[in-house]
Amino acid sequence: MADQAGAAPRFYLDDLQVGQRFTSGEYRIDEERMKAFAAEFDPQPFHLDDEAARSTVFQGLAASGWFTAAVAMRLLVQGGFKVANGLVGLGGEITWPRPTRAGDVLRVESEIVEIVPSRSKPTQGIVTMRNTTLNQNDEVAQIFTCKILVFRRPA
Amino acid sequence: MADQAGAAPRFYLDDLQVGQRFTSGEYRIDEERMKAFAAEFDPQPFHLDDEAARSTVFQGLAASGWFTAAVAMRLLVQGGFKVANGLVGLGGEITWPRPTRAGDVLRVESEIVEIVPSRSKPTQGIVTMRNTTLNQNDEVAQIFTCKILVFRRPA
Repeated sequence: MADQAGAAPRFYLDDLQVGQRFTSGEYRIDEERMKAFAAEFDPQPFHLDDEAARSTVFQGLAASGWFTAAVAMRLLVQGGFKVANGLVGLGGEITWPRPTRAGDVLRVESEIVEIVPSRSKPTQGIVTMRNTTLNQNDEVAQIFTCKILVFRRPA
Repeated sequence: MADQAGAAPRFYLDDLQVGQRFTSGEYRIDEERMKAFAAEFDPQPFHLDDEAARSTVFQGLAASGWFTAAVAMRLLVQGGFKVANGLVGLGGEITWPRPTRAGDVLRVESEIVEIVPSRSKPTQGIVTMRNTTLNQNDEVAQIFTCKILVFRRPA
């Protein structure tokens, strides 16, 4: 398969090893975009209105965790970890240790933690990645440990 | 706390028990909205273009898993499971057994699977819910088993 981007290499299962790390670019959280996302998908007062959010556990306007997740995906897709068949996630474990706030600048640091070749399908395997989303103060906003489907290099 | 909506009751920890079930309303997946979400947060060919998607593991245009997750959250928030302090998720495990397609009509069926009162904070507890997102053919598009923070009824 040709390298469509002409820039970062596109990985096959053969190219990956446990311990490899990748860092994404950055994404600044715009308050209006963050609120619009919440209005559409997670319309709760603490995601929509700073005044209403102050008396909640968030103690101020907080992004929906799904907005943080969506932004983290964008950072991953645009980052340096390019898989030949695309980033196809089967699922994973997600936690939000602290809320994302308007004005935060997020980045994702990824590490390959496990590689399991398929027994039944010799052309593919499952790669487990731990993707840590950090803000500008290096505080962890999200950890998403996911399993992705990766193919071997065609013979 | 007053019932702000005046309709569905708002639950405290005291009101919940393992085995309680809730079903959301429905949400029809609009192809343009699904593609626009992908263009913003998960810009990969199989989420953007039906032709390009045919030769991938998805075998046709598929929603980003994060779009499915966002829609499921909307269904949850608008559904009958209203928590007094709002739906505050700490994290959980998410899987996408099959892709969501344009035109699918999704709903979420939720079940409380565990309730753990906090030892250190007597006014709150952690409720584990299994939220299964199904399409119009009762096929499972997503399972999100999450931990949410729920407060006791004020004395």
